Amino acid sequence: MNYPNGIKKNNNSSDSIVSELSHKNRGMTLESELNTTNEYYRSIDKAFIYKKPTPIKITKVDYPSRDKAVIKEAFFTIPSTTDYNGLYKGKYIDFEAKETKSKTSFSLNNIHPHQINHLRNIYNHSGIAFLIVRFTTLNETYLLMVNDFLNYIDNNDKKSIPIDFFREKAYLLKDGYMPRIDYLKVIDEIIGG
Amino acid sequence: MNYPNGIKKNNNSSDSIVSELSHKNRGMTLESELNTTNEYYRSIDKAFIYKKPTPIKITKVDYPSRDKAVIKEAFFTIPSTTDYNGLYKGKYIDFEAKETKSKTSFSLNNIHPHQINHLRNIYNHSGIAFLIVRFTTLNETYLLMVNDFLNYIDNNDKKSIPIDFFREKAYLLKDGYMPRIDYLKVIDEIIGG
Repeated sequence: MNYPNGIKKNNNSSDSIVSELSHKNRGMTLESELNTTNEYYRSIDKAFIYKKPTPIKITKVDYPSRDKAVIKEAFFTIPSTTDYNGLYKGKYIDFEAKETKSKTSFSLNNIHPHQINHLRNIYNHSGIAFLIVRFTTLNETYLLMVNDFLNYIDNNDKKSIPIDFFREKAYLLKDGYMPRIDYLKVIDEIIGG
Repeated sequence: MNYPNGIKKNNNSSDSIVSELSHKNRGMTLESELNTTNEYYRSIDKAFIYKKPTPIKITKVDYPSRDKAVIKEAFFTIPSTTDYNGLYKGKYIDFEAKETKSKTSFSLNNIHPHQINHLRNIYNHSGIAFLIVRFTTLNETYLLMVNDFLNYIDNNDKKSIPIDFFREKAYLLKDGYMPRIDYLKVIDEIIGG
């Protein structure tokens, strides 16, 4: 089994953990494609959008020598914002990217409530906010603008967004070579760039 | 000795490490004041500016049980961007905050070359970029807009920016109660908000 970013796994006990890990591993694909895309955008001086580092709480650090701090204990913490933000054509860009195995819907458990609040704040203050959601089994990747996303969750009690909502309201993102996922092309269409 | 964020120090060997740590500890003051300020701005629905998580490379993770991942080995990595960014009045905000003990100048060693490149990119693409520099011994905190910063480094071979340059070109930020450091007031003056 391959682990993301050369992470070694020490212990293991249950199938659910394996499933969680392979889920995380699948998650690398969209993430790494978006990272490649953002690197490309920077290389052609088009946009400056970065994935934020994973938020962790550090509780123990070793200093075996100067300039060689080693974190010996830390914990993943819940992110307060989305994973990606940056600048494009003078505008503030903010989005979250998620993958799902489901063929029928995107579970809202994938997005933390404060991430939803954050997206709402960005929308209210004239930032450009959206979700990129990949249905891995279907091999379909969508860009869903935040106003459509908020419209859905504000008017539905469901715990998930059906695939048909994406097919109707969101923009299908096709895989390319350079850039890998040209999501700014969609943003250009929407904001009239 | 107090360590930031409850970090426990395991080993120690030299004074330089102690000095490095206490330097980091001092750094918490400006950082925590800016975090408090940004929380306040969010609470009054004024701006959505966050400090990015510290970038680390995770190399070992334990999974003692489901939902309880513990990072057992990780390393600090050099940030590719600045520490703070976000959205204010529809505009992209980006800045780096630094403290110095020096009474005479701000060493450019405090800012990584790719952070300078990043600030230049943000400036070129109509983002609002600046530095917040605190001279702790003098108890003076300045907001230096990126165009003045770039002007200085592009026209001087010096390895540091003298305090007089800050006193002439930058904006003195006074400590307040709520918000603690009202840097957006200065931004309002500059962008005519």
